[in-house]
Amino acid sequence: MTRLAQYFPIFDWGRTYDRLTLTNDLVAAVIVTIMLIPQSLAYALLAGLPPEMGLYASMLPIVLYAIFGTSRALAVGPVAVVSLLTAAAVSKVALPGTSEYIAAAITLAFLSGAILLVLGFLRLGFLANFLSHPVIAGFITASGIIIAASQLKNILGIDANGHNLLEIVVSLFENLDGVNWITMIIGVTTTAFLFWVRKGLLPLLIKFGLNARTASIVAKAGPVAAIFVTTLVVWGFGLAERGVKIVGDVPTGLPPLSMPSFSMDLWSSLIVSAVVISIIGFVESVSVAQTLAAKKRQRIDPDQELIGLGAANIGAAFTGGFPVTGGFSRSVVNYDAGASTPAAGAYTAIGLGVASLFLTPLIFNLPKATLAATIIVAVLSLVDFSILKKTWRYSKSDFAAVAITMTMTLMVGVELGVTTGVAVSILIHLFKTSRPHMAIVGQVPGTEHYRNVMRHKVVIDPSVLTIRVDESLYFANTRALEDRIYDEVAKQTDLKHVILMCSAVNAIDMSALESLQAINERLEVGGVDFHLSEVRINCKIEGQVIGDPDFPVQPHVVLKIGTGGIWIPLFRLIGF
Amino acid sequence: MTRLAQYFPIFDWGRTYDRLTLTNDLVAAVIVTIMLIPQSLAYALLAGLPPEMGLYASMLPIVLYAIFGTSRALAVGPVAVVSLLTAAAVSKVALPGTSEYIAAAITLAFLSGAILLVLGFLRLGFLANFLSHPVIAGFITASGIIIAASQLKNILGIDANGHNLLEIVVSLFENLDGVNWITMIIGVTTTAFLFWVRKGLLPLLIKFGLNARTASIVAKAGPVAAIFVTTLVVWGFGLAERGVKIVGDVPTGLPPLSMPSFSMDLWSSLIVSAVVISIIGFVESVSVAQTLAAKKRQRIDPDQELIGLGAANIGAAFTGGFPVTGGFSRSVVNYDAGASTPAAGAYTAIGLGVASLFLTPLIFNLPKATLAATIIVAVLSLVDFSILKKTWRYSKSDFAAVAITMTMTLMVGVELGVTTGVAVSILIHLFKTSRPHMAIVGQVPGTEHYRNVMRHKVVIDPSVLTIRVDESLYFANTRALEDRIYDEVAKQTDLKHVILMCSAVNAIDMSALESLQAINERLEVGGVDFHLSEVRINCKIEGQVIGDPDFPVQPHVVLKIGTGGIWIPLFRLIGF
Repeated sequence: MTRLAQYFPIFDWGRTYDRLTLTNDLVAAVIVTIMLIPQSLAYALLAGLPPEMGLYASMLPIVLYAIFGTSRALAVGPVAVVSLLTAAAVSKVALPGTSEYIAAAITLAFLSGAILLVLGFLRLGFLANFLSHPVIAGFITASGIIIAASQLKNILGIDANGHNLLEIVVSLFENLDGVNWITMIIGVTTTAFLFWVRKGLLPLLIKFGLNARTASIVAKAGPVAAIFVTTLVVWGFGLAERGVKIVGDVPTGLPPLSMPSFSMDLWSSLIVSAVVISIIGFVESVSVAQTLAAKKRQRIDPDQELIGLGAANIGAAFTGGFPVTGGFSRSVVNYDAGASTPAAGAYTAIGLGVASLFLTPLIFNLPKATLAATIIVAVLSLVDFSILKKTWRYSKSDFAAVAITMTMTLMVGVELGVTTGVAVSILIHLFKTSRPHMAIVGQVPGTEHYRNVMRHKVVIDPSVLTIRVDESLYFANTRALEDRIYDEVAKQTDLKHVILMCSAVNAIDMSALESLQAINERLEVGGVDFHLSEVRINCKIEGQVIGDPDFPVQPHVVLKIGTGGIWIPLFRLIGF
Repeated sequence: MTRLAQYFPIFDWGRTYDRLTLTNDLVAAVIVTIMLIPQSLAYALLAGLPPEMGLYASMLPIVLYAIFGTSRALAVGPVAVVSLLTAAAVSKVALPGTSEYIAAAITLAFLSGAILLVLGFLRLGFLANFLSHPVIAGFITASGIIIAASQLKNILGIDANGHNLLEIVVSLFENLDGVNWITMIIGVTTTAFLFWVRKGLLPLLIKFGLNARTASIVAKAGPVAAIFVTTLVVWGFGLAERGVKIVGDVPTGLPPLSMPSFSMDLWSSLIVSAVVISIIGFVESVSVAQTLAAKKRQRIDPDQELIGLGAANIGAAFTGGFPVTGGFSRSVVNYDAGASTPAAGAYTAIGLGVASLFLTPLIFNLPKATLAATIIVAVLSLVDFSILKKTWRYSKSDFAAVAITMTMTLMVGVELGVTTGVAVSILIHLFKTSRPHMAIVGQVPGTEHYRNVMRHKVVIDPSVLTIRVDESLYFANTRALEDRIYDEVAKQTDLKHVILMCSAVNAIDMSALESLQAINERLEVGGVDFHLSEVRINCKIEGQVIGDPDFPVQPHVVLKIGTGGIWIPLFRLIGF
């Protein structure tokens, strides 16, 4: 791969583009376009933005990702969780429905694009690793519930607001006397229909002889059918005059050129949200892309993905869109429909452009309840409580991280939920490593192996105490190590040597080094020698190998520790 | 030790209290009292508070610590760094010199006392471990510089303010034309005298036949001599009328009863600062206490220390004091003077009570410049840049943490400096563990040992790939593991087995488990079997031992990995 192709993957797949690939891509583009129209409108609604912004956010971003992204099947555009995060962020600085709200959403797309680009250029894709799988799973489930709850107002035809489940439910109940029954009938029927399409239609189609792939694509067109029928009904019976809220006038035309705001006040209010949106969007997108790439034995490059998504968001900001990322459902459809290269995305963008040029008058009478129904059905498929059961069985600390993430997300809000989740999982990890497992070991008779005295029949010399610590030594666990050694030394009076067995120590930081020195000095005062054994430290302390990264062939080499400041040369001497 | 004695260590040492101990304690108390008077006044000045508050903060707190604390030599009271942090915190909510400022300082003592008590009852003393040694060293050095700079205004007799070095220096230069020359002469002379006492007097005294301990105690009385002489000079020449700022009226009497504010507004403005002060104070105090305890082979209990310091701060809040902790210099004097039990602290408190009942009129003419000189000389002994050199040599990442802590503390402020330091050292640790060392290994011929193919002559089977990962597997490094395995698998086409050698893996969390499952599923699709070997995981996943915490005697047991959901039982089967 040339250097150019590294930053512009288009030069990679573009060289081998032929007619078969073109046909595959065109077919996929038509299918995805049809599916994206309702989805884009719906997610704009979820973000509290005019519906056309959902279409705008699906055009240029998809093309820019096609140029810069590495996944061949990822479809970029508005997605549920990011739209919810956008609504949460933007409604802190402006009222929904105002031009300030729209400007803030555009600025948010710009900021998260900029953040993604910076992270990409600095090759910081690994930062996303700090979102643990269980925390993401818990967050997505909780977000799905909040999104579904937030859309109930559109199903019922009432007003309701709130940033967390409690606020939303209270607000729904307070406004319950304003229910518009016609809206509710449309909303509930559509929701039921869409659930049936997912669960009932697919087996039926297969039974009627369609192959699984075609059946799945037809079933995914359900929302389009729902939009068509409900729009016709609202138009035919004049239901808009009976209080059914409709999409109304949607401007015809291609995406307008827009400019993000460069107000520092707005930036500082949005920057934290932009970071959260960037990271969440990136993690969601990369996991979708990896899943799809794995199926075809392709690889994606997370750092380049940051650049692709960053470009897509910058594109959204300049063409009247809002924050976008690679979405699961739209990508899966794209993949199932046979998209071979990112060019399929570009053709989808053309399709959406045609739609927004000519089709927007047709959706004047589209009821918002229908869009709400498509959102509810889509997000409820993300809700999966099994992560609670799985983590409970495997590890209570992982369970705690998930439970806290879900509770905070549901009860306080999405942004605080996910940041708390990250913080808690890091704290739990640090807490666990700050209390490492330590064992007193003795020699297995006739061997060079040393084992826990509590578990094995071993030989010990009363003048020698050997302690094995099963963790890298760093600032958070140095005190635990000191405490344990001093406790053990205090118990045994005729001790002459203490040996710290370092077979499971992968690194020693400066704090730990100072602790070892302190232990050494203190034991020396009491006439006890302190040694290290099996220093298999791949303490590659900034490039200089100290000790050997492999196990010594001799299993129990004892090293005398120097005193005072001569530690570093001593460590260097460990040459086995 | 009984349960009562665990929470009230006084029942432990109180049982064996005799006349010799009493004499030792009384002698130490007299010496410490004399030394504490200037120190207490000076640190009140540093915190921006009336001088008598320094005395108040040294009485009840010292008694409460004697009852609840575990160190026998620790002397609790105002200390330099905590006083600086107090000034930084309180000046955000009130102007120095106002009654609101005093009320806020008292409330801050109450809040940090409450935080310390809560941490103590929850046995959370280990939290202090997250301040790494180098970060503390860097922070103390930077704080010392800021404190010294902030006192220059009192030496020069001008006004100056600022929360960081830059602000202080700019402010000093702006006000330089207001220098009071008499103040400056007093200030500079006193500073020079006190430095000479530290560096020159001590050897001289020893030369004249005093033993080292007595000489050290006499030398520590230098500040008292300086106070005595400069007060006399100011009084004799009427220098207060010539613009020399003096301490002035200090109320006579025992500490007043005071009440912290219970305003939620004030609490929310101070709570973050209170957390920082609690943790910094605790860490400083515990390290002093541990150093002194080690000399006498005593142990201190960090969790009980939290309770002792918490009680001391609550005591300060109700007797007109401000945040206190165990101080290095006062504790060392106490120890050197021969204090045997915490009762010495109680006698010191009585001595200070006598002083504030009868001696305060004598310090009316004490120039503030003298107090500033004692602060400068005290804190400059804390300044030690060698930590930069040491960390640079040992580990660039520890160096980065220190450099960032010092830069932020000097350039932005103390609170942000120390919190950034903690955050940076945690991030660096996570970053390092997120990119674990991995090696492809082969068998050392004729042995059961497996070594890095890059370093040893080993035998490998082209159909088997064995990778050793030298780090516990958790959410931050699962992607690195997946990437590496997929990369290696892509390189070798005739592969039948991939073995992950887990000899250095101390734990596997839920995210890592899911990654292993994903790797297994993906390799299976390509016809490659995935195995784990040497699973010596002391994955005590919340109490259930999975695998054996000791090395298997067979050095290379290969375990077949199950697919799908049957991981957990499989892990349980590992019984070697």
